[in-house]
Amino acid sequence: MNSPHRAELLARLATMPGCDWRTQADAMAPYLAEQRGLYYGAALAVALPQDTAAVSALVRACGELDLALVPQGGNTGLCGGAVAQDAARQVIVGLERLNRIRTVDAADFTLTAEAGCIVQRIREAAAAHDCLFPLSFGADGSAQLGGVLSTNAGGTNVLRYGNARELTLGLEVVLADGQVWDGLTALRKDNTGYDLKQLFIGAEGTLGIITAAVVKLFPLPRETVTAWLACPSVDACLTVFGRLRAGSGDTVTGCELVSRLALDFVLRHLPGARDPLGTRSPWYLLVELSSSSASAGLGAALETVLERCLASGAITDAAVAASQAQGGDFWRLREAVAEVQRHEGASIKNDVSVPVSAMPAVVAEASTAVEARCHGVRPCIFGHIGDGNLHFNLTQPTGMPAQDFLDQWQELTECVNTVVEKYRGSISAEHGIGLLKRDALARHEPAVALELMRGIKSALDPHGRLNPGKLLPPG
Amino acid sequence: MNSPHRAELLARLATMPGCDWRTQADAMAPYLAEQRGLYYGAALAVALPQDTAAVSALVRACGELDLALVPQGGNTGLCGGAVAQDAARQVIVGLERLNRIRTVDAADFTLTAEAGCIVQRIREAAAAHDCLFPLSFGADGSAQLGGVLSTNAGGTNVLRYGNARELTLGLEVVLADGQVWDGLTALRKDNTGYDLKQLFIGAEGTLGIITAAVVKLFPLPRETVTAWLACPSVDACLTVFGRLRAGSGDTVTGCELVSRLALDFVLRHLPGARDPLGTRSPWYLLVELSSSSASAGLGAALETVLERCLASGAITDAAVAASQAQGGDFWRLREAVAEVQRHEGASIKNDVSVPVSAMPAVVAEASTAVEARCHGVRPCIFGHIGDGNLHFNLTQPTGMPAQDFLDQWQELTECVNTVVEKYRGSISAEHGIGLLKRDALARHEPAVALELMRGIKSALDPHGRLNPGKLLPPG
Repeated sequence: MNSPHRAELLARLATMPGCDWRTQADAMAPYLAEQRGLYYGAALAVALPQDTAAVSALVRACGELDLALVPQGGNTGLCGGAVAQDAARQVIVGLERLNRIRTVDAADFTLTAEAGCIVQRIREAAAAHDCLFPLSFGADGSAQLGGVLSTNAGGTNVLRYGNARELTLGLEVVLADGQVWDGLTALRKDNTGYDLKQLFIGAEGTLGIITAAVVKLFPLPRETVTAWLACPSVDACLTVFGRLRAGSGDTVTGCELVSRLALDFVLRHLPGARDPLGTRSPWYLLVELSSSSASAGLGAALETVLERCLASGAITDAAVAASQAQGGDFWRLREAVAEVQRHEGASIKNDVSVPVSAMPAVVAEASTAVEARCHGVRPCIFGHIGDGNLHFNLTQPTGMPAQDFLDQWQELTECVNTVVEKYRGSISAEHGIGLLKRDALARHEPAVALELMRGIKSALDPHGRLNPGKLLPPG
Repeated sequence: MNSPHRAELLARLATMPGCDWRTQADAMAPYLAEQRGLYYGAALAVALPQDTAAVSALVRACGELDLALVPQGGNTGLCGGAVAQDAARQVIVGLERLNRIRTVDAADFTLTAEAGCIVQRIREAAAAHDCLFPLSFGADGSAQLGGVLSTNAGGTNVLRYGNARELTLGLEVVLADGQVWDGLTALRKDNTGYDLKQLFIGAEGTLGIITAAVVKLFPLPRETVTAWLACPSVDACLTVFGRLRAGSGDTVTGCELVSRLALDFVLRHLPGARDPLGTRSPWYLLVELSSSSASAGLGAALETVLERCLASGAITDAAVAASQAQGGDFWRLREAVAEVQRHEGASIKNDVSVPVSAMPAVVAEASTAVEARCHGVRPCIFGHIGDGNLHFNLTQPTGMPAQDFLDQWQELTECVNTVVEKYRGSISAEHGIGLLKRDALARHEPAVALELMRGIKSALDPHGRLNPGKLLPPG
């Protein structure tokens, strides 16, 4: 679109203080692309405000011009939540220039950073003060704090430290009318009215634009032990998890489930990957204990639990990492699962959660259901067992044309979601809704919940200017 | 009031299924009384519904009759949030008959209970499954789950386990129009749209009536060490806290600040109380480390930190409890502080929080400010140092008539709140707003926050039927 109207809008926007603009196709391309190629966006322009005041001015200006705003962080989301969809009326707001770490307060165990800060940089800034910022997931080298909070990101150590929501103490947010809500407090306890920050965390930018946050820090781990365990069943994995949790003084910071098929894919496609154990097992657990005390005796605690689990048959074999390097090798096997899957053909990804105790039943029933629907489908299952979070990914049957498999996306996803719903699970554990799961949300969420969500959206963004079309299914 | 209109309303309400009624003055009295005598309520009647369906029917019926509802749990709140104020138009909803513990799932580390369950009973039910429900505070022998969640209760181990909000996984809520929102899921990760439960937690019954909840459990502690430490300053207390946290593998479950004056009051008025240390110190810390592992080496970790702190002067003396009984004695000293204060005359209580690192400055500045305003005032300071939560209570000067002191309530509270605000603290850390702090909230909360809160209230309770007049200052 290059109408005179567009030129006029761009000219009016260009006068705004504190904003850089990307309006040419090539300059806008990185903001329109979506990493998995599921969507390609369309926007009037990309605005790059320099600070909170500029975001506020931008939102007001867009309001006057009847334009909508699509906030975007590192653009690493998995559900299309940052994809703009209207070349005439949507402006992408890239938060990348709001990239200052404002303060690190080690005595308070808090850090204040702007929305555009990359998660890994925040972790490094905390570490420089001998503190841990625990959020850790695949994309954290490019994901930005604002996006991470807006999607309530999870990752591998939610079990011990909580997800993004639980790591947040305060927020600064630009509201739909351009007002700035300064809730940037560093308080562990604060019962002064409704907890407003909770509204914006996980709202995918539909209720306000997060511009800064105060997050919790923790003492840096001084001792870590890592082990790769073979388990005969998902049920056995749960037993191991429960014993580890109690027997280690609740120091479990990772408890990752990996199916044999997932490990096979990694061994086949990840250069240099080695099976940590000599014999095959249907399931594996990657466990990590860590403590900020260098004398917590984690090795001994792990040993005791493993002996007990070997004796009872809950594990059949175990490799305890002899060095940090070997522990890193174990983690690389786990982290490669999502990536190597593409070498086996088309795949359909499901990010679901259920009560931890329901995981064995859900794995069994969902596996049966997808096989009945698509003979030969290969469930490449992995996940965070302590959180009840399964990445119940489906790899196409060997030899089937990829498109034939992808044509079954909705049916196969519904096979999984139906089982998840039976156990009162979630169809989006940590990735959010965005565009990808909006229709599924409409099918699986009770009407009264959708009605409440719409009421909140109307109250906070009555003109629907913030990330329109995302998260909420059409009413 | 005993008008014909009242009789007619009561007759119509009496036909409702599943509700018991208290309508006589003596039967209503316990629901109208407020524990500190700050208020005495007025209500048309007290309804005691038997289950969620009955609550729902009650809310619908009250809607049709244009009556408002005041939810009430154990009636242990400290800010008047459960006080009814209209004998013609307000019905108290006592949740005490919703007292079933629905399930305990030890493998999932979760428990599902109804709103009327007493907190201590929930803790006992969890312990019977070898699990810990960590919420612990003075009134937990009579406080009910629904009230605890509605006020986002804190207590002594928030530092390690979080407050009521962070312990909640799912909720069942009766909405203002009588619909039931069933969000009773037991999920550690769930990113399917707005996190609705966050709205109702801490909302003091103004957005919905919580009827049941799923809460988190933890492994039961197997090892606990307790110590009573003398510190020369609040600053030194912070140093001890930081070292303990890092040096003990983040196993600190309690870190309670007690001023010398507070200890003096306890020693004077608590029968059998003994000073754990031989010499006087301006400040004390009661610290507790605990672990679900019986071999976490907490005693050794504590010893190491204490030696280091003695050497650096951060502590001047220490008593490590030699037995569980002695640890209990230390805790009794701390727990008695709030109670014994009344023996010293009138008192004005402040429940504030600030960033942990700001506590030394806030204690110093607020002490100076209240002394300047009221010569001889005795600040009886205690609190949860790891949470930045100070109970900055003011005991009247010796010899001053009580009423003369109480007449300065607002001025003295504002002295404290002004210092708290300077450090971006909270004027209500864990007690909530209710009636008592509504005007202070209007003074200290930014207008944009109040506007957001009013928007949410209008969206969820457009006719203002739920706990009218509480929490939100008049607009």
